[in-house]
Amino acid sequence: MMRVQLTLDKLLERAVDLFPERELVTKLPDGSVHRYTYADAYGRICQLAHALDGLELEAGARVGVVATNHYRHFELYFGPACSGRSIHMCNMRLPDHHFVHTIEDADDEVLFVDPWLLEKVEANADDLESVEQFVVLGEEVPETDLEPVVAYEDLLEGHPTEYEWPDVDETAEYGMCHTSGTTGLPKGVPYTHRAMYLHSIMCGHTDANGIGESDVVLPVVPMFHANGWGLPYAATFVGAKQVFPSVHTDPEAIATLIDEEEVTFSAAVPTIWLEMAEFLDENPDVDISNIERLTVGGSAPPESLIRKYDEEYDAPIIQGWGMTETSPLGTLSTLRKEVAELPAEERDEYRAMAGFPVPGMQVRIVDDDGDEVPRDGETMGELQVRSPWVTDRYHDRPDETEASVTEDGYLKTGDVAVRNELGYVDVVDRDTDMIKSGGEWISSVQLENELMAHEDVAEASVVAVDHERWQERPLAVVVPTDGASPTADDLEDHLAETFPSWWLPDAYEVIEEIPKTSTGKFDKKRLRDRFDVVLEAESDAEAPPEAEPSSHDDADAPEL
Amino acid sequence: MMRVQLTLDKLLERAVDLFPERELVTKLPDGSVHRYTYADAYGRICQLAHALDGLELEAGARVGVVATNHYRHFELYFGPACSGRSIHMCNMRLPDHHFVHTIEDADDEVLFVDPWLLEKVEANADDLESVEQFVVLGEEVPETDLEPVVAYEDLLEGHPTEYEWPDVDETAEYGMCHTSGTTGLPKGVPYTHRAMYLHSIMCGHTDANGIGESDVVLPVVPMFHANGWGLPYAATFVGAKQVFPSVHTDPEAIATLIDEEEVTFSAAVPTIWLEMAEFLDENPDVDISNIERLTVGGSAPPESLIRKYDEEYDAPIIQGWGMTETSPLGTLSTLRKEVAELPAEERDEYRAMAGFPVPGMQVRIVDDDGDEVPRDGETMGELQVRSPWVTDRYHDRPDETEASVTEDGYLKTGDVAVRNELGYVDVVDRDTDMIKSGGEWISSVQLENELMAHEDVAEASVVAVDHERWQERPLAVVVPTDGASPTADDLEDHLAETFPSWWLPDAYEVIEEIPKTSTGKFDKKRLRDRFDVVLEAESDAEAPPEAEPSSHDDADAPEL
Repeated sequence: MMRVQLTLDKLLERAVDLFPERELVTKLPDGSVHRYTYADAYGRICQLAHALDGLELEAGARVGVVATNHYRHFELYFGPACSGRSIHMCNMRLPDHHFVHTIEDADDEVLFVDPWLLEKVEANADDLESVEQFVVLGEEVPETDLEPVVAYEDLLEGHPTEYEWPDVDETAEYGMCHTSGTTGLPKGVPYTHRAMYLHSIMCGHTDANGIGESDVVLPVVPMFHANGWGLPYAATFVGAKQVFPSVHTDPEAIATLIDEEEVTFSAAVPTIWLEMAEFLDENPDVDISNIERLTVGGSAPPESLIRKYDEEYDAPIIQGWGMTETSPLGTLSTLRKEVAELPAEERDEYRAMAGFPVPGMQVRIVDDDGDEVPRDGETMGELQVRSPWVTDRYHDRPDETEASVTEDGYLKTGDVAVRNELGYVDVVDRDTDMIKSGGEWISSVQLENELMAHEDVAEASVVAVDHERWQERPLAVVVPTDGASPTADDLEDHLAETFPSWWLPDAYEVIEEIPKTSTGKFDKKRLRDRFDVVLEAESDAEAPPEAEPSSHDDADAPEL
Repeated sequence: MMRVQLTLDKLLERAVDLFPERELVTKLPDGSVHRYTYADAYGRICQLAHALDGLELEAGARVGVVATNHYRHFELYFGPACSGRSIHMCNMRLPDHHFVHTIEDADDEVLFVDPWLLEKVEANADDLESVEQFVVLGEEVPETDLEPVVAYEDLLEGHPTEYEWPDVDETAEYGMCHTSGTTGLPKGVPYTHRAMYLHSIMCGHTDANGIGESDVVLPVVPMFHANGWGLPYAATFVGAKQVFPSVHTDPEAIATLIDEEEVTFSAAVPTIWLEMAEFLDENPDVDISNIERLTVGGSAPPESLIRKYDEEYDAPIIQGWGMTETSPLGTLSTLRKEVAELPAEERDEYRAMAGFPVPGMQVRIVDDDGDEVPRDGETMGELQVRSPWVTDRYHDRPDETEASVTEDGYLKTGDVAVRNELGYVDVVDRDTDMIKSGGEWISSVQLENELMAHEDVAEASVVAVDHERWQERPLAVVVPTDGASPTADDLEDHLAETFPSWWLPDAYEVIEEIPKTSTGKFDKKRLRDRFDVVLEAESDAEAPPEAEPSSHDDADAPEL
């Protein structure tokens, strides 16, 4: 059979060959809308490739991109990759020293920066030693002390709109993201053409996201975060219309874009859909009925949110699990036949899980000895995965690599999970966020979901705090819904309906907003730092006498 | 990224890991039904692999299979491949000397034979020099002079039901089919693991066949013909229930299987669905309403058949184009958004086309100079394709290989096709079946489709016969519907409504049945042989004076 390399130029060439007139739409920061076609984009991607030649970037060289989601960022998804270089997608929400580390770690030679993100780069410019050229993603260069600097449009200007793509081996790197992780400096994950080609065809699989040519795809998830969950590549492969929000990721802007551009598929962290539901409640004239499915990831969506989108917008929310290390798609809470036929309530439990392994993803959950745990939906273990689109190494981090990949070639995800007999995975928690109380695990995610099901609670986060006797105990932090003021007793009574007494948090803190990480997840590290002291003083006194973890049996364990 | 080999054991392991209880159903020759699960099949496939070890078959060795579609054939789709050997799927409908050639060409060391196909093998046993072991696919060996011979069940008996699959490189051969072609000896096409892995994930793509876990897949197309169109592999990858008809491929048996096993997806040549429609007309109690889509290939289905299945059974017929050389799927007449939105009549024209390139398939139509022809739906050229699942060679046929693959790596299919501006391909004819009259092409396929749209015509085939003046002229062979007796004038009047006068056949022959090739296509070679003389005598006298091919202009050319 033909040794056709599985490279990203194939995706782009297919879109231009078969869907040259399909649109790529960007809502620009000034509120205006930029539209052009795959044919237009192709010409500019070729110009970009010539411009990189002009900058004398060698094969394999990396360019950094500090940008929101828009058409120029889309061009950068292909120009460096197809011409044999690599795009380093920079997370500008990282703390300065981490941000600088990622760029130096990737050895970015050119840095492409949005005009509205210049400040972050300027503040760290002196430390960006690898960068030899700054490019501002716009028509012109605003006042800046970056140098040398050129406007993106000037860089492209005058170059031919055709390019002879070089023969790139499919195992070559096309891009890199850094995973922020929970400890230490961010680690780089080098992505290969082969991995993203396979990830893209998988995203169109009917048992995965099923992204097809008739979809209109709106990636709310940042394109610097795990390849924008692979959506710009998957959508290009099928020639789907794409919609980019640039800076407009507030619920009103997203809902309006969905309405105006007839978006059928979108993806974001649950918070976005939570906030959009609130916006839609107040703005019933905004119509999101074209939406066929919404993918969420990063944290588990509450079942109440899933039900609301079903009932009010006929827009199923499908949870996904993945990591920067997995390109990212690993599992999706699609409903296999046996589950789809269940009564609605049982069925929806599956929809709140991390989900079912997508085709091409091997999944196992193992105990400390490396043996698979029973598929009973209860026994916890570490989630390990293997796939052509899962990384086998961290860039220039041999120690981290060795610690993360098993001898038989599985990635140790660090997530604690259970699996049921139908093959569904539920991520109970990150290793680092798990609460281990008296030798037994308590799932903060399950407590959070149940708290968020309470009518007075908008958001909830449960963190571990130190405890003299039980080592760790849970503390709940909640944000009330408008006008509500839930009491600790209310919340404890609510949780007690579902969980054993020793799971119940030792304290409840009501705050206005839960701090988020750069990728929109609840920032548990900051929460722990903030509330650690409070609970230390109280917890000894409040630890319920019946909180005897060693005495609990299987009958007490919650159903997952 | 992990260098996970794209090998067929991944498909099988996924089915057993996630869908161990899903069923594989076979309707046995005696009419009884055999049922077992992927878990059962897996155990037996492991036993088969051990048995092949016992026969001392080395890595890369080929085993031939002469069998209809059933569960043992399914086991042979995986056992040899996953253990590092190769399955050679033998076409027992070939003439004896071709049949023998394929087995000797593949150097099959073991030959697995259905009890009901023994005669074909026995008749040629003396010439099968490579074969060292015959295996009869059953419980016991019937009376036979084959030797040495063993029953399949005895071969498996006692072996362990687990097997440690070897590390097979994804570029290794897992199987071989021979393409019967139109001239000369059949040519072997060696398939690689990588090709079929990619073909399988593509078959699940929402813009291709969209085969998913909830499907129930019935391959009517023989499993010796181009991997059964890849269906047993694609269905295993997603863990779908599979239904095998063995010898029962008559319309009644197929319709009944669809009804009883709740089949959602099936594939066959158009004749099968044509005959099934006739059966269903007479047996309205048989219910095929579970069918969600039917794929056809081999020859174009008449629009009237497509409409009948739409209207009466709500079962869309999707045409596909492919070859033994292309694994086989190349294009599918799925409806891209712009087409789906057309009025029904215009839309259905697309559904009768070969279709749209599936993701991963590069397609071009070129003139004699190798330049792409205009995408106007009219200009004919040779269809050329490129994909990881398209062959780059014929087994041990360097001359044929060189003649079939272009310098830039496309397969020359020998099919004459047109393409329209939306990217749809319509195969006008095989090179060898095209009618070239006075230097201009006449499409026998289009004439056939229009003839079959006539109420008195059940089947029609149009072939080229020699002509002194015009080099070639069309001759039509028709099978009337029950009780009808169409005249040449009726048919000519009917065709004249659509085609220019010089396209109209010079003669019409009414026969009882059109001879078919071993793969169920109209056998035009035999038709030509049979009617050549007849027309030679008549054609000079009947050639219409207005048949002046050189004078026709674009306005006369039919819309495709």
